[in-house]
Amino acid sequence: MNMTTRILAPLALLLCLPAIAASPKSKDTPSVTQLLAESKPEEWRRPDPENLLVMRLSSGPVVMELDPAYAPLHVSNIKTLVRERYFDGVAIVRVQDDFVVQWDDPAAVDGGDPHKLRSLGSAQATLPPEFTRRIAISLPWVRLPDGDVYAPEVGFTEDFPAARDPAANETWLVHCYGTLAIGRNDPQDSGNGSELYVVIGQSPRRLDRNLTVVGRVVEGMAELATLPRGEGQMGFYAHPKDQVPILDIRVAADLPSAQRPNIEILRTDSRTFQRILEAARDRHDAFYARPPGKVDICAVPVPVRDVSKP
Amino acid sequence: MNMTTRILAPLALLLCLPAIAASPKSKDTPSVTQLLAESKPEEWRRPDPENLLVMRLSSGPVVMELDPAYAPLHVSNIKTLVRERYFDGVAIVRVQDDFVVQWDDPAAVDGGDPHKLRSLGSAQATLPPEFTRRIAISLPWVRLPDGDVYAPEVGFTEDFPAARDPAANETWLVHCYGTLAIGRNDPQDSGNGSELYVVIGQSPRRLDRNLTVVGRVVEGMAELATLPRGEGQMGFYAHPKDQVPILDIRVAADLPSAQRPNIEILRTDSRTFQRILEAARDRHDAFYARPPGKVDICAVPVPVRDVSKP
Repeated sequence: MNMTTRILAPLALLLCLPAIAASPKSKDTPSVTQLLAESKPEEWRRPDPENLLVMRLSSGPVVMELDPAYAPLHVSNIKTLVRERYFDGVAIVRVQDDFVVQWDDPAAVDGGDPHKLRSLGSAQATLPPEFTRRIAISLPWVRLPDGDVYAPEVGFTEDFPAARDPAANETWLVHCYGTLAIGRNDPQDSGNGSELYVVIGQSPRRLDRNLTVVGRVVEGMAELATLPRGEGQMGFYAHPKDQVPILDIRVAADLPSAQRPNIEILRTDSRTFQRILEAARDRHDAFYARPPGKVDICAVPVPVRDVSKP
Repeated sequence: MNMTTRILAPLALLLCLPAIAASPKSKDTPSVTQLLAESKPEEWRRPDPENLLVMRLSSGPVVMELDPAYAPLHVSNIKTLVRERYFDGVAIVRVQDDFVVQWDDPAAVDGGDPHKLRSLGSAQATLPPEFTRRIAISLPWVRLPDGDVYAPEVGFTEDFPAARDPAANETWLVHCYGTLAIGRNDPQDSGNGSELYVVIGQSPRRLDRNLTVVGRVVEGMAELATLPRGEGQMGFYAHPKDQVPILDIRVAADLPSAQRPNIEILRTDSRTFQRILEAARDRHDAFYARPPGKVDICAVPVPVRDVSKP
């Protein structure tokens, strides 16, 4: 292939912890790196730049993929806010260890000046919750057969981790590491996308079906996960000066093509992804004493690669 | 009570995400903060200073509790290494996002000088694996009734998250956020405690029963979780200069009493901990649309409080 690839998320799947990696034997379960190296170009999907957000922090960019099939109203409202420059100059106001990074209008949080609230412009101030949606034949479903503590069924839809309750005819995106969702106040329609959070710890699955998930971070998670933890209650930064400024957020489609994220996402209905799941479930190599036999929905991040021309 | 308390881990359990916290109504499920405020002194356990390690980084201390009931040989070997100053001047050599922070002799990793390996002193170089142990009547067991993807039973033992397979008469500590365990090479007896790792992301439960878990971080997780991610393969720091020096590690019992961690751990067999589990499982308040009804073993960190005299 006439391009270089840099593998991003799949490093988290390299299971061994040797100080110096041993060379694999031929009959061993292949590593994720090996499996990805053997993948075919058509197993990768280039995300629609209309569904990609690029957030710039001074430390680097964070790229998020939105899923309008699961939260059409919220995705649309966020894009309105982005295009009307609502987020340019807002800040990360909360970083709670093992939980979430959250950004919001600094005037909306404790210590802010409520008289300086930003205008939502032409975006909606309230929206019907999109905590779940109906199951539809148009939605792909790659079921994980290993069970789940919280949901009747789990799997992948449109390459996002998700769950289903066939009896209730409901499906929803789940909270895993990197999940992007809508903060809100008590009223269920009080979220509008101006306040967003990303999971940076153990998957808080209790939030499933209680908040509107709109997508996930596909590049730059480390920029968020390494931020200093807030010392106020619930991880809010205690002082406005501690807040982390967001330089701007853009829809990738609005950027010059040279500035768009150049990434591909492994299709979860591909043979390579199935092999990765199988390797996580029943790994056989010199390291593993006891393959787990199962895999949790949040234990296998969907691989993303940065595809740059040489 | 004639002391001030600072609550550490439980903040991760505050479930709401309101920009400005609403005042709770009296019939609402109490918050974790409220539940802990109502706890009784005898529900808290002061960890044995013989089982506490204090690691000093330039950014601050990290306190770990060891559990000799589950890994007696490894805990003993680590304490020998600590007391013979093996770790003073070693470094954090690996930080892989959503996975682990790992420390080791820099000479033992790629780019190190294998001729400069530290001596293990009187510690053992190899140890029989302690991946699991037999179930014993002497081990407390607070079972979680909500199921698990990986193990027949999960619960808490000696206030650590754990699992059991009664049919095989086996029990083991599980990999959750903050779990401390022994790195090794392919041979199952190749871990000796000189190379340790701490989980900083989604619980890598696939490692259960494949590595020896020795305890967990009880204070200072943020010092580890915010470290820059390594840019080498598997999150190893690409250059020795990127490594994060460990100033020293001490057994708390060896420190002057004024320097010992002044912490207490909530007993998992206490009524307050049961109320916290119940609140995570069936939360009823103005925020929650749909209580999850279940709780995952890694979703409820065991509360720790810093108890300082005023």
